[in-house]
Amino acid sequence: MKKFAFIFLLSIFLLNSCTDSSPEKKATTVNEMSKNNFGLVIHGGAGTILKENMTPEMEAQYEATLKKAAQKGYEILQNGGTSLDAVEQTIHILENSPLFNAGKGAVFANNGKNELDASIMEGKTLNAGAVAGVTNLKNPISAARKVMENSDHVLLARQGAEEFAALQGLEIVDTSYFYTEARFKSLQKAKMGNQDKAAYIDPYIKEYKYGTVGCVALDKDGNLAAGTSTGGMTNKKWNRIGDSPIIGAGTYANNKTCAVSSTGHGEYFIRAAVAYDISAMMEYKSMSLEEAAKEVIQNKLKKMGGDGGIIAIDTNGNLVAEFNTPGMYRAKVDENGNITVGIYKE
Amino acid sequence: MKKFAFIFLLSIFLLNSCTDSSPEKKATTVNEMSKNNFGLVIHGGAGTILKENMTPEMEAQYEATLKKAAQKGYEILQNGGTSLDAVEQTIHILENSPLFNAGKGAVFANNGKNELDASIMEGKTLNAGAVAGVTNLKNPISAARKVMENSDHVLLARQGAEEFAALQGLEIVDTSYFYTEARFKSLQKAKMGNQDKAAYIDPYIKEYKYGTVGCVALDKDGNLAAGTSTGGMTNKKWNRIGDSPIIGAGTYANNKTCAVSSTGHGEYFIRAAVAYDISAMMEYKSMSLEEAAKEVIQNKLKKMGGDGGIIAIDTNGNLVAEFNTPGMYRAKVDENGNITVGIYKE
Repeated sequence: MKKFAFIFLLSIFLLNSCTDSSPEKKATTVNEMSKNNFGLVIHGGAGTILKENMTPEMEAQYEATLKKAAQKGYEILQNGGTSLDAVEQTIHILENSPLFNAGKGAVFANNGKNELDASIMEGKTLNAGAVAGVTNLKNPISAARKVMENSDHVLLARQGAEEFAALQGLEIVDTSYFYTEARFKSLQKAKMGNQDKAAYIDPYIKEYKYGTVGCVALDKDGNLAAGTSTGGMTNKKWNRIGDSPIIGAGTYANNKTCAVSSTGHGEYFIRAAVAYDISAMMEYKSMSLEEAAKEVIQNKLKKMGGDGGIIAIDTNGNLVAEFNTPGMYRAKVDENGNITVGIYKE
Repeated sequence: MKKFAFIFLLSIFLLNSCTDSSPEKKATTVNEMSKNNFGLVIHGGAGTILKENMTPEMEAQYEATLKKAAQKGYEILQNGGTSLDAVEQTIHILENSPLFNAGKGAVFANNGKNELDASIMEGKTLNAGAVAGVTNLKNPISAARKVMENSDHVLLARQGAEEFAALQGLEIVDTSYFYTEARFKSLQKAKMGNQDKAAYIDPYIKEYKYGTVGCVALDKDGNLAAGTSTGGMTNKKWNRIGDSPIIGAGTYANNKTCAVSSTGHGEYFIRAAVAYDISAMMEYKSMSLEEAAKEVIQNKLKKMGGDGGIIAIDTNGNLVAEFNTPGMYRAKVDENGNITVGIYKE
């Protein structure tokens, strides 16, 4: 009898041990280590951002604006505000700065206009809203939020989106608001180089860069949100829409897993469904946010030839910024208000 | 010693048995049963399609057109053509028929125009192309293919997409081409009912239906492709874009897993990333195509409140049509040329 009892106990142990060693269990344990009760990550674009091309003055300007935006989001979350409010208002600061390719600093399309895209999603309800190709809205991220909250739709485009935003009382600006000399020169340069090629040459760092700003946040109630806003690519033609207004590519949030905002060569991000893929790997393969982000950005996307990066936060407040380019403007804030700003590879 | 040997063997057995019972192993076996070396599935929309609302004449017309389209695709594949050609040319037949909400039969937007969306993707390269809100292209699916093959972009919108398609030599039609009395009456009816509500009342079946046509195919070289084309929702406002031109929502193809085309309440399909989700469940959870399609359409999408369905084919030629509405116009063709047409629930 003793022998059988021993075998029985051993069997139970072995069955348990093989359950324990499954990836599902392992990752759950990793995920269960809560990093922050609340927090946020922001980005201001990824690309060939190299220290040798940057002046100390420009570096200081980028850092100060990223810090200001992160601080704003932190205050909202610290005061018990929603992740949705934190995302929207943090992005306002980036949209209102001429430094980033979104809102005020948006690049010029081939037709000499600024065509802006944005999207937002909340993890609790999986509600989402987006606008594409708007030309007269000061803060496209707020238009995306209005689409989410006050329409039956997810994605509205161009004049239609502008009419809807006007009905919602959002701030309309003259299209000249988006004129910045530096961006206009970038368009001329791009046109001289290749009439048909859309790209984004950052006038400040004199290099190839993907613009776009974004923010992901976790609030004290455990709700995730993500938002992205962009001017797209300099010299873009034919009313091209990139990944920023595409839910699942440029933006995704799900309280089960994580919130993600992308920046990079949008066409690859759409084809790879980048933002949703990170969530799917966490949900279906029980990977941690860090593992999933690394797999998608450093392996899958790179193999396809796609440059760029993402910021993300999971339900445990893990803060991630993953990119396969030399640099990405970014900032992380933890629940203690510690802000870490980064520009180049660490 | 004998006791230890017995325990050792039992341990090996238990460890093995728990590995064998993992879902990964089970599903791989199911997937390995090849159904067809080539084949295709098409759809012409899902919704409240009930036999009692349908005349025998209308039923015969729908069935004949679905059969003609399926036959066309089969001939291309049988002769060694690509899945991409089969998808494009099959969809042409559906776009050129007034019966379906795509191309010729597209519904009217609130502004009295017909605004068409389409997308296409090939599983071998993960290349994709799409157009949104085009008003003068006879076959939007071909414009999507041109975007994929002859531009650096994935998604072009409205006038820009029309200009690009014209440069590519595609057939431009007068906007009056898309006038059909039945659809125009549907718009008037929708406007009378609720000025702001976008919906799709099918004039033939007098019921609520999601239009959209689509095709997924596997060719003799083992390459998958998927395509979707639609007129969107009757009475849609503000240049609303649904899921049909969104890669990952309305259309997805990946030679690793499957090709999917969606039809339904587009906003839910975007938020749930329906087409990519089915592929992700196959890739990450080793589910069969049937299992993944059922889980997404009957469980996840339904819980969110989303109506509609998908057609799909995997690398082993399994043919799937899954919908959570009373009916979906559909047809399947196997490698022997057997065509199965369906309208209502089986």
